[in-house]
Amino acid sequence: MKLTILFGGASYEHEISIVSAITVMDKLSSFDITLVFCDQDHQFYKVDTKEMKAKSFSSGAHKKMPLLHVIKGGFELRKTFSKELFNAPVLNLIHGGDGEDGTIASILDFYNIAYIGPRKEASVFSFDKGYTKWLADSLHVKSLEYEIVCQGEKPSIALPIIIKPARLGSSIGVSIVKEASELEYALDLAFEFDERVVVEPFVAGVKEYNLAGCNLDGKIKYSIVEEPEKQDFLDFDKKYRDFSRSSKANEAQLDAFMVEKLQEAFSKIYNGLFEGALIRCDFFVIENEVYLNEINPIPGSMAHYLFEDFDALIQNLLKNLPTQKRAQVNYQYIHSINQAKGK
Amino acid sequence: MKLTILFGGASYEHEISIVSAITVMDKLSSFDITLVFCDQDHQFYKVDTKEMKAKSFSSGAHKKMPLLHVIKGGFELRKTFSKELFNAPVLNLIHGGDGEDGTIASILDFYNIAYIGPRKEASVFSFDKGYTKWLADSLHVKSLEYEIVCQGEKPSIALPIIIKPARLGSSIGVSIVKEASELEYALDLAFEFDERVVVEPFVAGVKEYNLAGCNLDGKIKYSIVEEPEKQDFLDFDKKYRDFSRSSKANEAQLDAFMVEKLQEAFSKIYNGLFEGALIRCDFFVIENEVYLNEINPIPGSMAHYLFEDFDALIQNLLKNLPTQKRAQVNYQYIHSINQAKGK
Repeated sequence: MKLTILFGGASYEHEISIVSAITVMDKLSSFDITLVFCDQDHQFYKVDTKEMKAKSFSSGAHKKMPLLHVIKGGFELRKTFSKELFNAPVLNLIHGGDGEDGTIASILDFYNIAYIGPRKEASVFSFDKGYTKWLADSLHVKSLEYEIVCQGEKPSIALPIIIKPARLGSSIGVSIVKEASELEYALDLAFEFDERVVVEPFVAGVKEYNLAGCNLDGKIKYSIVEEPEKQDFLDFDKKYRDFSRSSKANEAQLDAFMVEKLQEAFSKIYNGLFEGALIRCDFFVIENEVYLNEINPIPGSMAHYLFEDFDALIQNLLKNLPTQKRAQVNYQYIHSINQAKGK
Repeated sequence: MKLTILFGGASYEHEISIVSAITVMDKLSSFDITLVFCDQDHQFYKVDTKEMKAKSFSSGAHKKMPLLHVIKGGFELRKTFSKELFNAPVLNLIHGGDGEDGTIASILDFYNIAYIGPRKEASVFSFDKGYTKWLADSLHVKSLEYEIVCQGEKPSIALPIIIKPARLGSSIGVSIVKEASELEYALDLAFEFDERVVVEPFVAGVKEYNLAGCNLDGKIKYSIVEEPEKQDFLDFDKKYRDFSRSSKANEAQLDAFMVEKLQEAFSKIYNGLFEGALIRCDFFVIENEVYLNEINPIPGSMAHYLFEDFDALIQNLLKNLPTQKRAQVNYQYIHSINQAKGK
């Protein structure tokens, strides 16, 4: 089976995307893979498998790789006397901006290129943590109390709180504020990355569970539930290493009832919005109630470590991509008006 | 001042977009205008001003016009021995799919082309009438009671009701159901266009008011309030003619207090989401309360007829387009990890 892995992007998570792509490529051994790198200037390059290491990009060596152009149906490589089209379906592995904000989804849809990844509507709701709250509220999925704070405003939620830029992933710009003296710096830091920040109460020692899945043949295929390593929160550096993990995760010790509750919340979020994507939802459990923490519509290394047979899962997902319904234009109104005018 | 008018698109409102573009072009006499047509196959063409009539497109004559390619900074025309870049800011005049759903916005953002029009987040919230309800609820703007109905489901709101496909504009697929016997046909019709439909109570004789505006220098410039022609609702044919209107609208006879209430609801919707766009919000007024009916993020012929000096308004809006904050990639993590590894 053919697959294009698209990675990089003009994003704060650019480097994480490179690491993710290297890891995922290794996990899809049955596939015939084309590697496409998007640099921060939005140029696309075709990467040879043997050059697929972080240094190829950090050193700028990629600038000598063959340029690609997005055209109808795929990525085109233009040679002096010929052209080659790489038209395999795309696995969108651009984390953060470009990849998770709906931009790449729109471009792939516009040029009629099939892809695994969130569609633009799903991207808008998951990329902005404020909109994720609206989504959860509207679907009656619980999430923590929150406040959206703009520059110059102060949060009113009692300390301790957690402060997050509305639109960044991988814990960039996130702080826990336990003392009033830490507030100003934490807000300044978050406002470096976004003009709106989301403030929530910080619940120390809260139980966290991650669950991934995707819709296959009208039914969600769930991963095992993972209880992530316990710490206040993962900072960028730890997450960076986390994105390159290759071993399987340990399954959380949960009774069937709680697993079902997590799956139920996941399906409310997923159905009708995330089709075509393999997502990971991160939940809190407080007094046996499930709270949505965040949606990762392109999870680090595609959360491969949560699935028994990741390669088969991706094969199956490729057969289950949503089809676009495109309007047919027949000019009946212009024709009828011209007729009425005698033209 | 230079401006590119982009129109057409693979959309049920393709023909309306052509009519809109012809009308708007006429209203922007101070501008040096480039006309770019997007056909239903997503090819871009450069249209000569003298060919700017509906028949050029309905007859297929546009296929002989020069092809354009979106590249960084604008639309490129490739000639045998040279290239020409049309890099004026774009007025996105593609109504409906492509233009109002966030696709064109994403492409223009990705290729660093400035434009008047809704950004992708704003597009997602205004294009889908279900998401518009979530937006209104979250911002505490009143809207009519509603229900989202999927295929096979029946609405529970008491008759008379109005049934709309979630994601279409220009009244396509919209029906008013007064008798139970009309329900099935109305639902079938709406489901022709979308898999989800929005059902609302139909309030006969409700007062309707339209208000347009855009953010200039941090403050919303409002249009006059229009009371649209009274009928149950505008069908496609009537709207089609409406999109080509060239005369000024009549101002609604409202007291200052009610105008302020409409403006207040408009600003709640607009601020922080619709910057860069000139939008028209359509409201109902019931017992002196303002209800949002719908958001038109690219109103027909840009609602020019609601503004005193439309040409000056567009000039000013071009100076007030939001800037994109793009992540700078410096590879500090890859460098530091390579250093730690001694590479």
